[in-house]
Amino acid sequence: METFEPQDPDFESRVRSGFDSQPLMQTIGATLIKLAPGEVHIELPFSDALTQGNGFLHAGVTTAIVDSACGFAAFSLMPADSSVLTVEFKVNLISPAKGGRFLAVGKVIKPGRTLSVCSGEVTAYDNGQAKLIAMMQATMVRVAKQELSP
Amino acid sequence: METFEPQDPDFESRVRSGFDSQPLMQTIGATLIKLAPGEVHIELPFSDALTQGNGFLHAGVTTAIVDSACGFAAFSLMPADSSVLTVEFKVNLISPAKGGRFLAVGKVIKPGRTLSVCSGEVTAYDNGQAKLIAMMQATMVRVAKQELSP
Amino acid sequence: METFEPQDPDFESRVRSGFDSQPLMQTIGATLIKLAPGEVHIELPFSDALTQGNGFLHAGVTTAIVDSACGFAAFSLMPADSSVLTVEFKVNLISPAKGGRFLAVGKVIKPGRTLSVCSGEVTAYDNGQAKLIAMMQATMVRVAKQELSP
Amino acid sequence: METFEPQDPDFESRVRSGFDSQPLMQTIGATLIKLAPGEVHIELPFSDALTQGNGFLHAGVTTAIVDSACGFAAFSLMPADSSVLTVEFKVNLISPAKGGRFLAVGKVIKPGRTLSVCSGEVTAYDNGQAKLIAMMQATMVRVAKQELSP
Repeated sequence: METFEPQDPDFESRVRSGFDSQPLMQTIGATLIKLAPGEVHIELPFSDALTQGNGFLHAGVTTAIVDSACGFAAFSLMPADSSVLTVEFKVNLISPAKGGRFLAVGKVIKPGRTLSVCSGEVTAYDNGQAKLIAMMQATMVRVAKQELSP
Repeated sequence: METFEPQDPDFESRVRSGFDSQPLMQTIGATLIKLAPGEVHIELPFSDALTQGNGFLHAGVTTAIVDSACGFAAFSLMPADSSVLTVEFKVNLISPAKGGRFLAVGKVIKPGRTLSVCSGEVTAYDNGQAKLIAMMQATMVRVAKQELSP
Repeated sequence: METFEPQDPDFESRVRSGFDSQPLMQTIGATLIKLAPGEVHIELPFSDALTQGNGFLHAGVTTAIVDSACGFAAFSLMPADSSVLTVEFKVNLISPAKGGRFLAVGKVIKPGRTLSVCSGEVTAYDNGQAKLIAMMQATMVRVAKQELSP
Repeated sequence: METFEPQDPDFESRVRSGFDSQPLMQTIGATLIKLAPGEVHIELPFSDALTQGNGFLHAGVTTAIVDSACGFAAFSLMPADSSVLTVEFKVNLISPAKGGRFLAVGKVIKPGRTLSVCSGEVTAYDNGQAKLIAMMQATMVRVAKQELSP
């Protein structure tokens, strides 16, 4: 695993405040629990409200936390005046999303001036057992902050 | 576009009750607004609680509605004793998810005894303008109902 | 289906000469058989040399023709001084690639200044029967020509 | 990285003979250089005939070797009477495929009775420098051998 040098010495507070300003993360109860240059961990406790009818986390929720983990991992390596948007991702749902809590880890594989390639994993913790439930391969794009005012 | 003959004459009530038993759809406020063999439409009104910080729908939410649309489209063509799980999907986020409401359309491209391939689109409606914001290509798997008891 | 206005009035000869300068297309025997703004058709006759052991076209070859079709479709809408590279794609292999010839159709879904999203299909023709064998969802990137000198 | 126990003690000769019977691998000049349960390495020397016009390996060729690496990695863990087909894959082309030789490594992430999830990487070796040029996330399916007679 490569280690990355952040361009913005203040990347940590920038990522944390970015995460805190994502309403969906609060809505579903996700928290940012670890942050390093090019790597972000997001945790989500199980909730019935987020399931798909068989008692498993809905794929959209699994995707939400690992997309945010990958997006913020890419964001951590961008210059200070950046916003990040997801270009695309691919998710394999490897095992049913069953557990008491879920950990999404997003890592930058290749940072770029415009496009960054990321890899993500979601692990379920069920009665003390860890199980890989999803893998993501994603492309993120840097957008200059001022271009994004909605 | 091919038209499909459902194996289960009762597919409509089966899909509707499947949708109604997905807690996440209620949590985010999505409704099933159209249903035909191999095709499902799901609508979602905008809500700040579902955004990603720039006022756009979070990619996980966009994914949730189009994944459910594709999954139920596949489910509509399965035999009566089936459950459906998502194997994998790929989503391109084509334009920022900005709008007052969003329509996810999922269609079966190739139904199969075990695996079904689906295609999905999400359109945003913003001040009367329709804009394609996301495309999905997905694989769904049929699971016999009794195998899924959590 | 949207129709697109090419930025470069000379797009046709530019795409044809781009195709003619792709050695792999000659190596496998593929030909460009149709070209319109944002849409490219590539045909490939079956050859044992391109198979994967069960008599089906290898997935890499199926991918090669639909990737080129999508890439040149995107290229057709770019300004004159452009090169195009594939950022990523996702391919579903829907049915075994069995047939006497194969047609890959690539279409631009959303052209962009930098990134273009494309959709592709491969159809096999087997004893007069057409069968969809693969679907692609792809992202292409415009690169200014001079940046690519190897 | 998990280690896997092959179900077929004879997996090695089965995989090698599977590889030897893939005409495309001979056509492009690829060789199987390493094989372990759930992991396959395939090497390809550069050839002009396989390029896309800028002197880079065509994405279809990059895909061909990493798809075969992933497919045979999955195949190595299957029972003796199996064939393997690719369900789908996603490839990110991280850097231009420039180099004297290319190494594709395919690994099984989650083996399954029917579906196996694999992860692949392609590295280019250019003047003694190794560079990651592509990543694959793929789903493979086991098919009983007799079902596949074309």
